[in-house]
Amino acid sequence: MRVLLVGAGGVGTAITRIAARRRFLEHMTVADHDRSRAESAVATLGERGDRFAALRLDASDPAAVRAALAEHRCDVLLNATDPRFVMPLFEAALAEGVHYLDMAMSLSRPHPSRPYEECGVKLGDEQFERSADWEAAGRLALVGMGVEPGLSDVFARYASDELFDEIDELGIRDGADLTVEGYDFAPSFSIWTTIEECLNPPVVYEEERGWFTTAPFSEPEVFDFPEGIGPVECVNVEHEEVLLVPRWLKARRVTFKYGLGDEFIGVLRTLHKLGLDRTAPVTVRSGLGEAEVSPRDVVAACLPDPAGLGERMRGKTCAGTWVKGSKDGRPREVYLYHVVDNQWSMREYGSQAVVWQTAINPVAALELVARGTWGGSGVLGPEAMPPRPFLDLLGEYGAPWGIREQ
Amino acid sequence: MRVLLVGAGGVGTAITRIAARRRFLEHMTVADHDRSRAESAVATLGERGDRFAALRLDASDPAAVRAALAEHRCDVLLNATDPRFVMPLFEAALAEGVHYLDMAMSLSRPHPSRPYEECGVKLGDEQFERSADWEAAGRLALVGMGVEPGLSDVFARYASDELFDEIDELGIRDGADLTVEGYDFAPSFSIWTTIEECLNPPVVYEEERGWFTTAPFSEPEVFDFPEGIGPVECVNVEHEEVLLVPRWLKARRVTFKYGLGDEFIGVLRTLHKLGLDRTAPVTVRSGLGEAEVSPRDVVAACLPDPAGLGERMRGKTCAGTWVKGSKDGRPREVYLYHVVDNQWSMREYGSQAVVWQTAINPVAALELVARGTWGGSGVLGPEAMPPRPFLDLLGEYGAPWGIREQ
Repeated sequence: MRVLLVGAGGVGTAITRIAARRRFLEHMTVADHDRSRAESAVATLGERGDRFAALRLDASDPAAVRAALAEHRCDVLLNATDPRFVMPLFEAALAEGVHYLDMAMSLSRPHPSRPYEECGVKLGDEQFERSADWEAAGRLALVGMGVEPGLSDVFARYASDELFDEIDELGIRDGADLTVEGYDFAPSFSIWTTIEECLNPPVVYEEERGWFTTAPFSEPEVFDFPEGIGPVECVNVEHEEVLLVPRWLKARRVTFKYGLGDEFIGVLRTLHKLGLDRTAPVTVRSGLGEAEVSPRDVVAACLPDPAGLGERMRGKTCAGTWVKGSKDGRPREVYLYHVVDNQWSMREYGSQAVVWQTAINPVAALELVARGTWGGSGVLGPEAMPPRPFLDLLGEYGAPWGIREQ
Repeated sequence: MRVLLVGAGGVGTAITRIAARRRFLEHMTVADHDRSRAESAVATLGERGDRFAALRLDASDPAAVRAALAEHRCDVLLNATDPRFVMPLFEAALAEGVHYLDMAMSLSRPHPSRPYEECGVKLGDEQFERSADWEAAGRLALVGMGVEPGLSDVFARYASDELFDEIDELGIRDGADLTVEGYDFAPSFSIWTTIEECLNPPVVYEEERGWFTTAPFSEPEVFDFPEGIGPVECVNVEHEEVLLVPRWLKARRVTFKYGLGDEFIGVLRTLHKLGLDRTAPVTVRSGLGEAEVSPRDVVAACLPDPAGLGERMRGKTCAGTWVKGSKDGRPREVYLYHVVDNQWSMREYGSQAVVWQTAINPVAALELVARGTWGGSGVLGPEAMPPRPFLDLLGEYGAPWGIREQ
């Protein structure tokens, strides 16, 4: 398989390190708008880097993306950029007739008048609208194939196929106990993106009601995460799984709750209250007279860059799917999960835990596509694929998953 | 009495409105670095403004201040600027041989190695060091003569003289229930100054230990404020009373707690945790390339200007002194207080409550100095003066005080 990887940030770089150890990969072209990031990702592979090449590429330029796909004879475009570039890359792959895989779906827009009650444009809507075109082209667009969405959706399908006859609630729960040495407060991921994600209206699915939205941070609950992470306060957050799961699986209710913890939720609420989450500029004095700056950029500038914190991080991150329902006429409740210890991922791959946990899943998915175990055409979510081969492959990658009967 | 008022901001402007109604005032020169502010303060007095003149003046230029005192034949300099200008104005008044009155004292500097345990340079230290020179000149420097410090210190002296034989604790407690219509979060005073005040190490006095400091927001307690304000969460804050009271009065413990409320305390903690309280610049993108901006300035720029919020404010503000001790061998506990309703102060004076409550006290003090009821020489706090005449005069000004036996 020949792959065009677009994006050589944290996740993109971890993808190269994981893929370099797998034989299914014939060639990977690593592209980034900043050529030095792409070159650095390839250079750090050392002697494992012989199947990789670096390229400068503007993800928002469809002609340049198509030319790169053609020049490097790629079978698939793997998108590891931020969600603003989903649609141009998705369209370029279709136009060029290659498969496509991403880890976040096309962006939502809130309902114009009832943002905390009704959905406007949903996550992925723009992609699913094009499904017939992908089917007609006989190509696969596998969307939301990171860890969450991604592995969490595979867990959902596995629960639906093998563990339950009926599902009452299927709730994705994501939590961690990561700390960063030397800092009172240092998010392990981009504060800019977290603000965006957490202040959008969260989406919930119910069988009778369909999809609807709530106010940010709704339905707080304390979830007890496994492998020593322990209890973390979780709240509803807008996330792809809620939009993906009901398209393929039957469940009375689907939610996504993010274990932000009460401290982080407090920080986000305060930033919103003070208007410091805004991207629209305010005028302030600067060294060179008055300047127009975005408050959210100033917040990000005050915090350490999470990409450089891996060596100082301690702890584990957990992604998983909590399912409540019945099997053989008896109530059942399980949590299917995947935990990564930051010290392990730093030692083994030089990648911090959150980034590494995201990156392993698209590589494993591509391996199954290369084997012909996963396939099909159209715009499909991870729950459209047979789950067992994927879950078995994770063990082979040295990243086993777990199950807790509750 | 002829007065040079330096500073025509919120408090300075309210001072002109209050003084214009009093006969003791022969003439007031209203000076500000921004001439239009001084002119506007005088112009809005209308026909009551005949004893007032406006002047442009740089408070940091001692020669200019002395020239203004001489030219307008002033008896006293009334300082209504921010605390950075205390020392130059205090020195200019001494050099020119006039009395001096301020509402905030010379600034503190934290202890270099144990900031949250020991005092460094204390509030007012620089002023008290010069007391002998003021005595030698036969002139009065009455320091800390606003509402807090100021009226709160008069209450302390009154309690000590007339209500108690022994005082265990003398605690200043300041709280409000002010809200600003149309805003989720809108401080009724400068967020920049509040950050400065609240994040400095708070100072406490104990008879055996002397003055010492604690961590910010220490010793939280809920205090029940009178006249319908109700319970508000209060914490230790660095304030002048703690430095003034023990110089003249005997009390086992002296504290100042500010009724910030848990919401406001949470906001300040979060700003500190994220480094958004810093004044040192960070580099961010701006409309014109990279800019160096102070995070604290950006926080202030995101919030409405409190000076313009008087019309939208509702509620009351309370300043007072809580005294615990004994009288005639029996335990006693009282709260001496002064409450201003914003709707009343806006209607009567066009000044918001917090600003008006500060401004009335230096005017009443000057009136007592003009009458010869208050006087003396050297650097003196309000507790060095007989309290009864002052408390009686407040009633005459239409701003009565109250007492609650607990």
